[in-house]
Amino acid sequence: MQKNAAPPCPFDKRFPSQLVRDDTFYMSLAFNQGIDAWREDEVPIGCVIELGGEVIASAHNRVECTNDPTAHAEMLAITQAASRAGDWRLENATLYVTKEPCPMCSGATLMSRVKRVCYAVPDPKMGCLGGATNLNDLQRVNHHLEITAGGVLEDECRELLQRFFQEKRKGGDSDRSA
Amino acid sequence: MQKNAAPPCPFDKRFPSQLVRDDTFYMSLAFNQGIDAWREDEVPIGCVIELGGEVIASAHNRVECTNDPTAHAEMLAITQAASRAGDWRLENATLYVTKEPCPMCSGATLMSRVKRVCYAVPDPKMGCLGGATNLNDLQRVNHHLEITAGGVLEDECRELLQRFFQEKRKGGDSDRSA
Repeated sequence: MQKNAAPPCPFDKRFPSQLVRDDTFYMSLAFNQGIDAWREDEVPIGCVIELGGEVIASAHNRVECTNDPTAHAEMLAITQAASRAGDWRLENATLYVTKEPCPMCSGATLMSRVKRVCYAVPDPKMGCLGGATNLNDLQRVNHHLEITAGGVLEDECRELLQRFFQEKRKGGDSDRSA
Repeated sequence: MQKNAAPPCPFDKRFPSQLVRDDTFYMSLAFNQGIDAWREDEVPIGCVIELGGEVIASAHNRVECTNDPTAHAEMLAITQAASRAGDWRLENATLYVTKEPCPMCSGATLMSRVKRVCYAVPDPKMGCLGGATNLNDLQRVNHHLEITAGGVLEDECRELLQRFFQEKRKGGDSDRSA
Protein backbone atom coordinates (compact mmCIF):
# COMPACT_ATOMS: atom_id res chain seq x y z
CA MET A 1 0.00 0.00 0.00
CA GLN A 2 1.42 3.31 -1.03
CA LYS A 3 1.63 5.93 1.69
CA ASN A 4 0.19 9.32 0.85
CA ALA A 5 1.60 12.53 2.24
CA ALA A 6 -0.35 14.05 5.12
CA PRO A 7 -2.89 16.69 4.10
CA PRO A 8 -1.91 20.12 5.48
CA CYS A 9 -3.13 20.52 9.07
CA PRO A 10 -5.38 23.60 9.35
CA PHE A 11 -5.22 23.74 13.16
CA ASP A 12 -2.68 25.45 15.38
CA LYS A 13 -1.10 24.13 18.53
CA ARG A 14 -2.28 25.52 21.85
CA PHE A 15 -0.05 27.38 24.30
CA PRO A 16 -1.75 27.26 27.70
CA SER A 17 -0.28 29.05 30.71
CA GLN A 18 2.06 26.86 32.73
CA LEU A 19 0.64 28.51 35.84
CA VAL A 20 -2.82 26.96 35.64
CA ARG A 21 -2.42 23.20 35.58
CA ASP A 22 -6.03 22.15 35.25
CA ASP A 23 -7.63 19.55 32.98
CA THR A 24 -7.68 22.01 30.08
CA PHE A 25 -3.93 22.56 30.45
CA TYR A 26 -3.12 18.87 30.18
CA MET A 27 -5.68 18.24 27.45
CA SER A 28 -4.14 21.09 25.46
CA LEU A 29 -0.86 19.20 25.48
CA ALA A 30 -2.66 16.03 24.38
CA PHE A 31 -4.29 18.06 21.59
CA ASN A 32 -0.85 19.25 20.51
CA GLN A 33 0.27 15.63 20.29
CA GLY A 34 -2.73 15.08 18.03
CA ILE A 35 -1.47 17.85 15.76
CA ASP A 36 1.92 16.14 15.62
CA ALA A 37 0.15 12.88 14.65
CA TRP A 38 -1.68 14.64 11.79
CA ARG A 39 1.58 16.10 10.50
CA GLU A 40 2.94 12.52 10.36
CA ASP A 41 -0.21 11.33 8.55
CA GLU A 42 -1.41 9.36 11.57
CA VAL A 43 -4.94 9.47 12.99
CA PRO A 44 -4.71 12.63 15.19
CA ILE A 45 -5.11 11.28 18.70
CA GLY A 46 -2.80 12.46 21.47
CA CYS A 47 -2.23 11.52 25.09
CA VAL A 48 -0.35 12.86 28.09
CA ILE A 49 0.03 11.43 31.57
CA GLU A 50 0.27 13.65 34.63
CA LEU A 51 1.77 12.68 37.97
CA GLY A 52 2.27 15.13 40.82
CA GLY A 53 1.58 18.14 38.61
CA GLU A 54 4.16 17.15 36.01
CA VAL A 55 3.76 15.61 32.57
CA ILE A 56 5.62 12.30 32.74
CA ALA A 57 4.60 11.00 29.31
CA SER A 58 3.26 12.32 26.03
CA ALA A 59 2.65 10.43 22.83
CA HIS A 60 0.48 10.22 19.76
CA ASN A 61 -0.89 7.49 17.59
CA ARG A 62 1.85 5.82 15.48
CA VAL A 63 0.11 2.76 14.05
CA GLU A 64 0.91 3.49 10.40
CA CYS A 65 4.55 4.53 10.65
CA THR A 66 5.42 1.63 12.96
CA ASN A 67 3.13 -0.93 11.31
CA ASP A 68 2.12 -1.84 14.86
CA PRO A 69 -1.56 -2.14 15.82
CA THR A 70 -0.64 -1.65 19.49
CA ALA A 71 1.02 1.76 18.87
CA HIS A 72 -1.92 3.87 20.00
CA ALA A 73 -1.20 7.12 21.85
CA GLU A 74 -2.32 5.76 25.22
CA MET A 75 -0.23 2.59 24.98
CA LEU A 76 2.94 4.49 24.10
CA ALA A 77 2.30 7.01 26.88
CA ILE A 78 1.65 4.31 29.49
CA THR A 79 4.90 2.53 28.63
CA GLN A 80 6.74 5.85 28.84
CA ALA A 81 5.15 6.80 32.16
CA ALA A 82 5.91 3.44 33.77
CA SER A 83 9.50 3.72 32.64
CA ARG A 84 9.74 7.21 34.11
CA ALA A 85 8.00 6.22 37.36
CA GLY A 86 10.09 3.05 37.72
CA ASP A 87 6.93 1.08 38.50
CA TRP A 88 4.27 -0.44 36.26
CA ARG A 89 1.60 0.63 38.75
CA LEU A 90 0.69 4.23 37.89
CA GLU A 91 -1.60 4.57 40.87
CA ASN A 92 -1.58 8.34 41.31
CA ALA A 93 -1.42 9.30 37.66
CA THR A 94 -4.05 10.88 35.41
CA LEU A 95 -4.19 9.98 31.72
CA TYR A 96 -5.50 12.64 29.31
CA VAL A 97 -6.48 11.56 25.83
CA THR A 98 -8.24 13.41 23.02
CA LYS A 99 -10.69 10.57 22.24
CA GLU A 100 -12.30 7.93 24.42
CA PRO A 101 -9.94 4.93 24.53
CA CYS A 102 -10.57 1.93 22.25
CA PRO A 103 -11.05 -1.57 23.70
CA MET A 104 -7.30 -2.16 23.98
CA CYS A 105 -6.40 1.20 25.48
CA SER A 106 -9.36 1.18 27.87
CA GLY A 107 -8.06 -2.13 29.16
CA ALA A 108 -4.55 -0.72 29.42
CA THR A 109 -5.74 2.10 31.68
CA LEU A 110 -7.11 -0.56 34.03
CA MET A 111 -4.04 -2.80 33.88
CA SER A 112 -1.70 0.12 34.53
CA ARG A 113 -3.85 1.18 37.50
CA VAL A 114 -3.93 4.87 36.65
CA LYS A 115 -6.03 6.82 39.10
CA ARG A 116 -8.06 8.80 36.60
CA VAL A 117 -8.77 8.94 32.87
CA CYS A 118 -9.95 12.20 31.29
CA TYR A 119 -11.01 11.95 27.66
CA ALA A 120 -12.22 14.74 25.38
CA VAL A 121 -14.43 13.08 22.77
CA PRO A 122 -16.78 10.23 23.69
CA ASP A 123 -16.81 7.35 21.18
CA PRO A 124 -20.07 5.37 21.12
CA LYS A 125 -18.69 3.05 18.43
CA MET A 126 -15.34 1.89 19.82
CA GLY A 127 -14.95 3.53 23.25
CA CYS A 128 -14.83 1.18 26.22
CA LEU A 129 -14.93 3.64 29.12
CA GLY A 130 -18.60 4.55 28.74
CA GLY A 131 -19.19 4.68 24.97
CA ALA A 132 -19.74 1.23 23.45
CA THR A 133 -19.33 -0.33 26.90
CA ASN A 134 -17.57 0.46 30.17
CA LEU A 135 -14.80 -1.91 31.23
CA ASN A 136 -14.53 0.04 34.47
CA ASP A 137 -17.87 -1.53 35.48
CA LEU A 138 -16.43 -5.06 35.56
CA GLN A 139 -16.74 -5.85 39.24
CA ARG A 140 -13.94 -8.38 39.58
CA VAL A 141 -11.21 -6.53 37.71
CA ASN A 142 -8.70 -5.60 40.39
CA HIS A 143 -8.59 -1.86 39.74
CA HIS A 144 -11.10 0.87 39.07
CA LEU A 145 -10.74 4.32 37.58
CA GLU A 146 -12.12 7.75 38.09
CA ILE A 147 -13.39 8.87 34.68
CA THR A 148 -13.96 12.37 33.29
CA ALA A 149 -15.95 11.65 30.13
CA GLY A 150 -16.08 14.54 27.67
CA GLY A 151 -16.32 18.26 28.24
CA VAL A 152 -12.60 19.15 28.25
CA LEU A 153 -11.64 20.60 24.83
CA GLU A 154 -14.23 18.22 23.42
CA ASP A 155 -15.17 20.39 20.42
CA GLU A 156 -11.55 21.10 19.49
CA CYS A 157 -10.49 17.46 19.70
CA ARG A 158 -13.56 16.29 17.75
CA GLU A 159 -12.99 18.84 15.00
CA LEU A 160 -9.35 17.73 14.69
CA LEU A 161 -10.41 14.12 14.18
CA GLN A 162 -13.37 14.77 11.89
CA ARG A 163 -11.43 17.16 9.70
CA PHE A 164 -8.56 14.68 9.33
CA PHE A 165 -10.87 11.97 8.02
CA GLN A 166 -12.60 14.47 5.70
CA GLU A 167 -9.26 15.49 4.24
CA LYS A 168 -8.17 11.88 3.85
CA ARG A 169 -11.37 11.00 2.03
CA LYS A 170 -10.84 13.94 -0.31
CA GLY A 171 -7.39 12.54 -1.02
CA GLY A 172 -8.90 9.16 -1.86
CA ASP A 173 -7.24 7.42 1.05
CA SER A 174 -10.14 5.82 2.89
CA ASP A 175 -8.44 2.80 4.43
CA ARG A 176 -6.99 4.46 7.50
CA SER A 177 -8.37 3.73 10.93
CA ALA A 178 -6.95 3.31 14.41
CA MET B 1 10.45 -3.65 46.20
CA GLN B 2 13.04 -6.41 46.34
CA LYS B 3 12.80 -8.96 43.57
CA ASN B 4 12.79 -12.57 44.69
CA ALA B 5 14.30 -15.36 42.64
CA ALA B 6 11.82 -17.48 40.71
CA PRO B 7 10.71 -20.63 42.52
CA PRO B 8 11.93 -23.76 40.67
CA CYS B 9 9.50 -24.67 37.88
CA PRO B 10 8.25 -28.26 38.36
CA PHE B 11 6.89 -28.56 34.80
CA ASP B 12 8.66 -29.65 31.64
CA LYS B 13 8.41 -28.14 28.21
CA ARG B 14 6.38 -29.98 25.58
CA PHE B 15 7.84 -31.33 22.33
CA PRO B 16 4.94 -31.85 19.92
CA SER B 17 5.51 -33.36 16.49
CA GLN B 18 6.13 -30.73 13.82
CA LEU B 19 4.06 -32.87 11.45
CA VAL B 20 0.71 -32.29 13.15
CA ARG B 21 0.07 -28.56 13.24
CA ASP B 22 -3.23 -28.50 15.08
CA ASP B 23 -4.38 -26.29 17.95
CA THR B 24 -2.60 -28.51 20.48
CA PHE B 25 0.67 -28.05 18.58
CA TYR B 26 0.52 -24.27 18.71
CA MET B 27 -0.78 -24.20 22.27
CA SER B 28 2.12 -26.42 23.30
CA LEU B 29 4.49 -23.73 22.06
CA ALA B 30 2.51 -21.10 23.98
CA PHE B 31 2.75 -23.32 27.07
CA ASN B 32 6.53 -23.50 26.60
CA GLN B 33 6.62 -19.71 26.55
CA GLY B 34 4.77 -19.83 29.87
CA ILE B 35 7.54 -22.04 31.27
CA ASP B 36 10.10 -19.48 30.12
CA ALA B 37 8.09 -16.78 31.90
CA TRP B 38 8.10 -18.78 35.14
CA ARG B 39 11.88 -19.23 34.93
CA GLU B 40 12.17 -15.44 34.72
CA ASP B 41 9.84 -15.01 37.70
CA GLU B 42 7.03 -13.64 35.56
CA VAL B 43 3.40 -14.75 35.69
CA PRO B 44 3.55 -17.83 33.41
CA ILE B 45 1.42 -16.86 30.44
CA GLY B 46 2.62 -17.55 26.90
CA CYS B 47 1.40 -16.69 23.44
CA VAL B 48 2.19 -17.65 19.86
CA ILE B 49 0.73 -16.36 16.60
CA GLU B 50 0.28 -18.62 13.59
CA LEU B 51 -0.02 -17.48 9.98
CA GLY B 52 -0.09 -19.86 7.04
CA GLY B 53 1.01 -22.80 9.15
CA GLU B 54 4.06 -21.03 10.53
CA VAL B 55 4.71 -19.45 13.93
CA ILE B 56 5.38 -15.78 13.21
CA ALA B 57 5.53 -14.61 16.84
CA SER B 58 6.04 -16.05 20.30
CA ALA B 59 6.30 -14.22 23.58
CA HIS B 60 5.60 -14.41 27.28
CA ASN B 61 4.55 -12.02 29.96
CA ARG B 62 7.36 -9.57 30.87
CA VAL B 63 5.61 -7.01 33.07
CA GLU B 64 7.98 -7.29 36.02
CA CYS B 65 11.33 -7.33 34.25
CA THR B 66 10.40 -4.45 31.96
CA ASN B 67 8.37 -2.49 34.55
CA ASP B 68 5.80 -2.07 31.78
CA PRO B 69 2.12 -2.83 32.40
CA THR B 70 1.57 -3.26 28.65
CA ALA B 71 4.17 -6.06 28.35
CA HIS B 72 1.71 -8.94 28.37
CA ALA B 73 2.45 -12.00 26.23
CA GLU B 74 -0.26 -11.18 23.69
CA MET B 75 0.83 -7.55 23.24
CA LEU B 76 4.46 -8.48 22.64
CA ALA B 77 3.45 -11.24 20.23
CA ILE B 78 1.10 -8.97 18.26
CA THR B 79 3.82 -6.33 17.83
CA GLN B 80 6.23 -9.06 16.70
CA ALA B 81 3.73 -10.58 14.26
CA ALA B 82 2.85 -7.24 12.67
CA SER B 83 6.54 -6.50 12.23
CA ARG B 84 7.07 -9.88 10.59
CA ALA B 85 3.97 -9.57 8.40
CA GLY B 86 4.82 -5.99 7.40
CA ASP B 87 1.21 -4.98 8.08
CA TRP B 88 -0.61 -4.10 11.28
CA ARG B 89 -3.70 -5.97 10.04
CA LEU B 90 -3.17 -9.62 10.99
CA GLU B 91 -6.29 -10.72 9.19
CA ASN B 92 -5.45 -14.36 8.55
CA ALA B 93 -3.56 -15.05 11.77
CA THR B 94 -4.55 -17.14 14.79
CA LEU B 95 -3.40 -16.10 18.25
CA TYR B 96 -2.87 -18.87 20.83
CA VAL B 97 -2.60 -17.90 24.48
CA THR B 98 -2.51 -19.98 27.64
CA LYS B 99 -5.09 -17.85 29.52
CA GLU B 100 -8.08 -15.86 28.34
CA PRO B 101 -6.86 -12.35 27.45
CA CYS B 102 -7.28 -9.49 29.96
CA PRO B 103 -9.23 -6.33 29.03
CA MET B 104 -6.21 -4.79 27.29
CA CYS B 105 -5.14 -7.88 25.36
CA SER B 106 -8.71 -8.78 24.39
CA GLY B 107 -8.97 -5.32 22.88
CA ALA B 108 -5.62 -5.76 21.14
CA THR B 109 -6.83 -8.92 19.39
CA LEU B 110 -9.70 -6.86 17.96
CA MET B 111 -7.55 -3.88 16.98
CA SER B 112 -4.98 -6.11 15.26
CA ARG B 113 -7.78 -7.87 13.36
CA VAL B 114 -6.53 -11.40 13.96
CA LYS B 115 -8.85 -13.99 12.46
CA ARG B 116 -9.07 -16.29 15.47
CA VAL B 117 -8.14 -16.38 19.14
CA CYS B 118 -7.67 -19.74 20.87
CA TYR B 119 -7.20 -19.57 24.64
CA ALA B 120 -6.59 -22.46 27.02
CA VAL B 121 -7.91 -21.29 30.42
CA PRO B 122 -11.10 -19.22 30.69
CA ASP B 123 -10.88 -16.32 33.16
CA PRO B 124 -14.24 -15.27 34.63
CA LYS B 125 -12.54 -12.53 36.68
CA MET B 126 -10.48 -10.60 34.11
CA GLY B 127 -11.10 -12.27 30.74
CA CYS B 128 -12.81 -10.14 28.10
CA LEU B 129 -13.44 -12.70 25.37
CA GLY B 130 -16.24 -14.54 27.14
CA GLY B 131 -15.20 -14.61 30.81
CA ALA B 132 -15.98 -11.34 32.62
CA THR B 133 -17.44 -9.92 29.39
CA ASN B 134 -17.02 -10.40 25.66
CA LEU B 135 -15.64 -7.43 23.71
CA ASN B 136 -16.21 -9.45 20.54
CA ASP B 137 -19.96 -8.88 21.06
CA LEU B 138 -19.68 -5.09 20.60
CA GLN B 139 -21.64 -4.64 17.40
CA ARG B 140 -20.00 -1.48 16.12
CA VAL B 141 -16.36 -2.43 16.60
CA ASN B 142 -15.01 -2.81 13.08
CA HIS B 143 -13.65 -6.34 13.42
CA HIS B 144 -14.85 -9.59 14.90
CA LEU B 145 -13.01 -12.72 15.91
CA GLU B 146 -13.52 -16.44 15.80
CA ILE B 147 -12.93 -17.65 19.35
CA THR B 148 -11.95 -21.08 20.67
CA ALA B 149 -12.58 -20.74 24.39
CA GLY B 150 -10.95 -23.41 26.52
CA GLY B 151 -10.40 -27.09 25.87
CA VAL B 152 -6.93 -26.96 24.30
CA LEU B 153 -4.32 -27.91 26.95
CA GLU B 154 -6.64 -26.23 29.42
CA ASP B 155 -5.65 -28.40 32.41
CA GLU B 156 -1.93 -28.07 31.75
CA CYS B 157 -2.05 -24.30 31.36
CA ARG B 158 -4.26 -23.88 34.44
CA GLU B 159 -1.97 -26.01 36.56
CA LEU B 160 1.04 -23.98 35.44
CA LEU B 161 -0.64 -20.74 36.54
CA GLN B 162 -2.12 -22.02 39.78
CA ARG B 163 1.10 -23.68 40.86
CA PHE B 164 3.10 -20.51 40.18
CA PHE B 165 0.91 -18.45 42.48
CA GLN B 166 0.99 -21.18 45.15
CA GLU B 167 4.78 -21.19 45.07
CA LYS B 168 4.94 -17.40 45.17
CA ARG B 169 2.65 -17.30 48.19
CA LYS B 170 4.84 -19.88 49.95
CA GLY B 171 7.78 -17.58 49.28
CA GLY B 172 5.94 -14.68 50.87
CA ASP B 173 5.75 -12.71 47.64
CA SER B 174 2.06 -12.01 47.27
CA ASP B 175 2.13 -8.74 45.38
CA ARG B 176 2.57 -10.10 41.87
CA SER B 177 -0.21 -9.98 39.37
CA ALA B 178 -0.51 -9.39 35.65
